[in-house]
Amino acid sequence: MAENRMMSLAALIKARDAGKANPELMVALSRDAIARKDPGVKAFAHVADEPVISQQGPLAGVAIGIKDIFDTFDQPTCYGSPAYAGHRPRTDAAIVDLARRQGATIIGKTVSTEFAFLNPAATVNPHNHAHTPGGSSSGSAAAVAAGMIPAATGTQTGGSVIRPASYCGIAGYKPSFRLLPVTGIKHFAPTLDTVGLFAAGVADVALLAALLTGRDLNAGVDDEPVDPGKIRVGLYRCALLEGADPDMQAALSQAADKAADAGFDVGEIGEPEAMAMARGAHSDIRNFEAGLVCGSDLALFGDQMSEVLARTITNGQAISPQAYDAARKLAKRGRAATRALFNEVDILLTPAAPGAAPLGLESTGDPRFNKLWTLMGTPAVNIPGFRDANGMPLGIQAVARFGQDKALLNVAAALERAFGD
Amino acid sequence: MAENRMMSLAALIKARDAGKANPELMVALSRDAIARKDPGVKAFAHVADEPVISQQGPLAGVAIGIKDIFDTFDQPTCYGSPAYAGHRPRTDAAIVDLARRQGATIIGKTVSTEFAFLNPAATVNPHNHAHTPGGSSSGSAAAVAAGMIPAATGTQTGGSVIRPASYCGIAGYKPSFRLLPVTGIKHFAPTLDTVGLFAAGVADVALLAALLTGRDLNAGVDDEPVDPGKIRVGLYRCALLEGADPDMQAALSQAADKAADAGFDVGEIGEPEAMAMARGAHSDIRNFEAGLVCGSDLALFGDQMSEVLARTITNGQAISPQAYDAARKLAKRGRAATRALFNEVDILLTPAAPGAAPLGLESTGDPRFNKLWTLMGTPAVNIPGFRDANGMPLGIQAVARFGQDKALLNVAAALERAFGD
Repeated sequence: MAENRMMSLAALIKARDAGKANPELMVALSRDAIARKDPGVKAFAHVADEPVISQQGPLAGVAIGIKDIFDTFDQPTCYGSPAYAGHRPRTDAAIVDLARRQGATIIGKTVSTEFAFLNPAATVNPHNHAHTPGGSSSGSAAAVAAGMIPAATGTQTGGSVIRPASYCGIAGYKPSFRLLPVTGIKHFAPTLDTVGLFAAGVADVALLAALLTGRDLNAGVDDEPVDPGKIRVGLYRCALLEGADPDMQAALSQAADKAADAGFDVGEIGEPEAMAMARGAHSDIRNFEAGLVCGSDLALFGDQMSEVLARTITNGQAISPQAYDAARKLAKRGRAATRALFNEVDILLTPAAPGAAPLGLESTGDPRFNKLWTLMGTPAVNIPGFRDANGMPLGIQAVARFGQDKALLNVAAALERAFGD
Repeated sequence: MAENRMMSLAALIKARDAGKANPELMVALSRDAIARKDPGVKAFAHVADEPVISQQGPLAGVAIGIKDIFDTFDQPTCYGSPAYAGHRPRTDAAIVDLARRQGATIIGKTVSTEFAFLNPAATVNPHNHAHTPGGSSSGSAAAVAAGMIPAATGTQTGGSVIRPASYCGIAGYKPSFRLLPVTGIKHFAPTLDTVGLFAAGVADVALLAALLTGRDLNAGVDDEPVDPGKIRVGLYRCALLEGADPDMQAALSQAADKAADAGFDVGEIGEPEAMAMARGAHSDIRNFEAGLVCGSDLALFGDQMSEVLARTITNGQAISPQAYDAARKLAKRGRAATRALFNEVDILLTPAAPGAAPLGLESTGDPRFNKLWTLMGTPAVNIPGFRDANGMPLGIQAVARFGQDKALLNVAAALERAFGD
């Protein structure tokens, strides 16, 4: 298939800072790559005609793709829905404005599934065009994986950052809940909707997060090398694991072995009952909230919605506040159990998805390994590096305690190197 | 001044259910009152030309005023800002859609200060047109107080529901954080922005909340009469109290006496240091978040902003993530102290504002008695019933533990009756 040499954000910025690349050149590289590759991959809903290129700021010259669920004042914002065709918001979403203030170039809008939910879009997997790239951040993951752009934004309500990153063989980062601002996205379930980031590798996505936010999130290759012997890595043995594809189970075993070889303190850890029950509460919480926040869309544009979206909103409106509160109580208990679990372990490893990207575009795959962590608000990273028998990417998901984003990115970067050895 | 006989939501619904009023008549009452009174009070930014009147749903015939910070698909939505003149969103905010689904009539958009912040609008206090109605939910509070409508929505980021309710002599209810959906409001500080409600009296606002949400929030006059001897009511002796106007201090003392006379277990309770420190963290949290979520407005429309708004957003962008995290940590400690405090007391009483509505329209008054509870996420109610020497309303604020909204509304309704005795 197509040549998929990815653009490393860290390498691009290093070249820029050394005077070997300037912002115009960096953006031109992306524009050329989009022109060549996007007709096949279909990752972009819109490409900026004359994108603003800044000479200043830590992200100067960095071409960022913005999932089309984020408002942009200067480009159409369609939320993956025909009901919003031609929609042009008055302002940028907060994360878009932040990216501009740090000097980034908003190169275009990447394809989202309808309202960032399950109905698939036209984007294909760059590794094999017959396979889904995953969803709902389909275009962002595919555009980075195809080497069109070094960075992109996404959102995750179930598994919409980690899963497409796994299917496309790139790094995806779902930060601790609310670390990145959600204002200006099309909400689906506000207590779950989380802004995430994509880049080629873990060090790239950590650098992106650090430069966007001004926070000390960079995977500390230079300043704080990981001492693996002090890091307790737990293979998370939830009941779902048995249902993962054999290739994924093998990849997880290899990941554990390579982590141990690299000196990490690797063990196994079971899933507390309260966390399994919290996972079970995810869909009631999501659907009740979708019934509230997409109720106006259903009333006004229901005839332009996919059947699965209209049905989910309708069903959500039928959930009683009492049932919602009961689900929220299960989530709260799950969070307490999660906090207790992270007294025993620093990093959990799980599959990022049940297996490699499914064949066909009828489904964006299954978020079963992601939705618990979205609900818990814990940071998660997809670490790429494994492949199935057909050469399709398999990602390992690393999860840490709420607020431990830097430690997670640090360890994930070290594990990514270990997986490659 | 103008005759200000208020419309009681409970009385209107009782009349409707008894067949003595129908939805057309109920809405016509409001339209007539608006036509007569609003030229003087200036509470409405827009009045619906042909409002939809539903025959079905628990709120059928209830004319609701919507603060112009909430999106409405069929009426202009200007966020109190000239930058949004003529703005027409594609959909309704979630609470507007919810109100429509319960049968309410969206009678118009009520005046908000610019972005629901401090710059005053033109609305006056119905009790004396030379005084401010408070802000930022200026129009909603004034329209209910002037007897134009039985119900209105507001938002509170500092004190924008409880303070105008106090100044206008009506009931205001700021629910537990996230009890009412915020999707579709113009955000200013998302971890603080809280949707609230206004109605004539506490029983009215409780009924409104119950019928809007389908939750059991109604002040249980019939089903669960309050047993005052079992309710520990604490006069909250924070250091701010000394700075309240003498009239307000006298009103608070009377409130405590009347509560004791009504049989409540009344005592005094001091402010834990951690809660005072949390109050001090409010402005850094608010400003940092405003810098993020209104950054695009500043970049695009800064020249159409008031000086205080532009300066606040600019200053917010200069706050470091580390300073923000430190402020959030103080808030977290404050919440733990608040939870502990509510082991010792059921309901706290405090001034709803430093005094009656200030003379003049240059300021919307001071939220110092409100912003802690916004940050803590605890439910709060303004109980009207007292007056200063000039006859201007003075409200008492009742606060309860997070999630104890029904208990709070129940007790506040009983206290309102006691204050009137």
